[in-house]
Amino acid sequence: MRALTLENHLQFQANHAQPRSGDGECLVRVRLAGICATDLQLVNGYMRFRGILGHEFVGVVESGSSSWQGKRVVCEINCVCRACDMCLSGLANHCRKRTVLGIDGRDGCFADFICVPEANLHEVPDALTDEQAVFVEPLAAAYQTLSQYPFGPKTKATVIGSGRLGLLVTQVLATTGCKLTVIGRNEVKLSLAEKRGVQAVHVDELVCRGDHDVVVECTGSPAGFDLATRLVRPRGSIVLKSTYAGEQGVNLASVVVNEITVLGSRCGLFSEALDALVREAVEVRSMITRTFPIDQAMEAMASAARPEHLKVLLDMRK
Amino acid sequence: MRALTLENHLQFQANHAQPRSGDGECLVRVRLAGICATDLQLVNGYMRFRGILGHEFVGVVESGSSSWQGKRVVCEINCVCRACDMCLSGLANHCRKRTVLGIDGRDGCFADFICVPEANLHEVPDALTDEQAVFVEPLAAAYQTLSQYPFGPKTKATVIGSGRLGLLVTQVLATTGCKLTVIGRNEVKLSLAEKRGVQAVHVDELVCRGDHDVVVECTGSPAGFDLATRLVRPRGSIVLKSTYAGEQGVNLASVVVNEITVLGSRCGLFSEALDALVREAVEVRSMITRTFPIDQAMEAMASAARPEHLKVLLDMRK
Repeated sequence: MRALTLENHLQFQANHAQPRSGDGECLVRVRLAGICATDLQLVNGYMRFRGILGHEFVGVVESGSSSWQGKRVVCEINCVCRACDMCLSGLANHCRKRTVLGIDGRDGCFADFICVPEANLHEVPDALTDEQAVFVEPLAAAYQTLSQYPFGPKTKATVIGSGRLGLLVTQVLATTGCKLTVIGRNEVKLSLAEKRGVQAVHVDELVCRGDHDVVVECTGSPAGFDLATRLVRPRGSIVLKSTYAGEQGVNLASVVVNEITVLGSRCGLFSEALDALVREAVEVRSMITRTFPIDQAMEAMASAARPEHLKVLLDMRK
Repeated sequence: MRALTLENHLQFQANHAQPRSGDGECLVRVRLAGICATDLQLVNGYMRFRGILGHEFVGVVESGSSSWQGKRVVCEINCVCRACDMCLSGLANHCRKRTVLGIDGRDGCFADFICVPEANLHEVPDALTDEQAVFVEPLAAAYQTLSQYPFGPKTKATVIGSGRLGLLVTQVLATTGCKLTVIGRNEVKLSLAEKRGVQAVHVDELVCRGDHDVVVECTGSPAGFDLATRLVRPRGSIVLKSTYAGEQGVNLASVVVNEITVLGSRCGLFSEALDALVREAVEVRSMITRTFPIDQAMEAMASAARPEHLKVLLDMRK
């Protein structure tokens, strides 16, 4: 099968061995996959990952379970043991022995086929296109923000970063009716937020008054964290949505002096994301800036790294 | 009057001008003052403070208000405007225009006299000695921890740091009945915790299993924060009690991946601290390792910086 692998370097393989599903697993034929900032970080050494990249996808179950066969599915990325203290306490996404599709100890979805635990599957409603369904994983991560802070109409909230994740988080927060601003560098991306009625501010034109109740940091950079500490009010909250992969550290002095709450935030509920897409509470199609056939996966990765692109997709349907 | 001042360098002055109280202020004759890690950081350039150092003290009101005259008092350190958005929203300790005794824009208490806002005063009950009352400010800061996390008998909690603040926080947490460990480097200090029934572990003998519900970081060092991220469980909390004064940053990667909550924590309620001392819920006298007359303030500061010392006091009574 075709696959994009990361060993000592990134490589497209036209004849990679097809995986075989184990007990409780299904083999899924991938239809469409999305490239995420984490994929780009993995190429730069994050997690020391080796194998097939990719964790955002929609596909059709090929084999493994008669009840799932032929169904169009999306798939949760954490593969868990259901026996450790975290799993038993209801925090399975933090399983001590977890593997994570295309991120940690397990092959991902930038390939014609992927093996996944049956328990991780969610059926995609007919109302959704493949191009919508491929956003379920990052959209679920964006929805996780709502479970961690009580956003409401009186909340003064800011999203730092107008990239792939930032614009998803912006749309999710906008559904709460909060007083929302998104901060970024790219005028085209900021205009996408403005089209949805959200105030967009270029970072160079920003005035920090330290009066925002909550800031959601979606850049994963120390500069983004520093900006968040200057925007947030004393006793306010900073939600960290992006992994901090670099060596460069952040300064916590103002977190203590201003008694700020910093909330790490990762994966979310697929059911919420699927529901939001069906209700059209969130619009994702305009975020797709380019779709490449899987054969051009190397070009697709290079494209996704360029600041003018939002979501870049890999198409395995042809 | 006698005073320890920080201008271009630290200096004891035998004939410093005595302050005059303004409207709504009292002149307090200082009896006993405590040296805190923040004082040592200020000498190293933190906050670029200039003036008389010191913010932990007990004294007697000399003049300024007939209702307070002659009363023995302790004093909250944040002097606030009562008009800004923070003051009006009930977060006066975060007043936008605040000055802070001996820390920010206002002379402190390492002197024979200090001027303070009448509204900041708390009368000291007769049951308490000066040596107990001088601990009210840092003990209130330790109690702030309880208002930020729901400690209980099932909570697995750790305090990092067995210094002045760490041992106060340890005693405060112990009152909740939580499963408590304190981690430090100094055997003598750790033994003080053990004498009060708290498990004490030398940092070199520590095994990190990532299974603590909450870690209270009292060292203010990036190494302390890094240790906290390895001790805390996924979805657990880290409370930051110490100011991070240095340039060296911390890495937030595991805060995101493990969805940790980081809580900055500063000043607390004096009433809680006074009440705890009267009830003898917390024992502070054994933490005093040395008391110097104010004339030897320079030697006292040098003493307080040495790792074998806990609380070093300055005595103005003679």
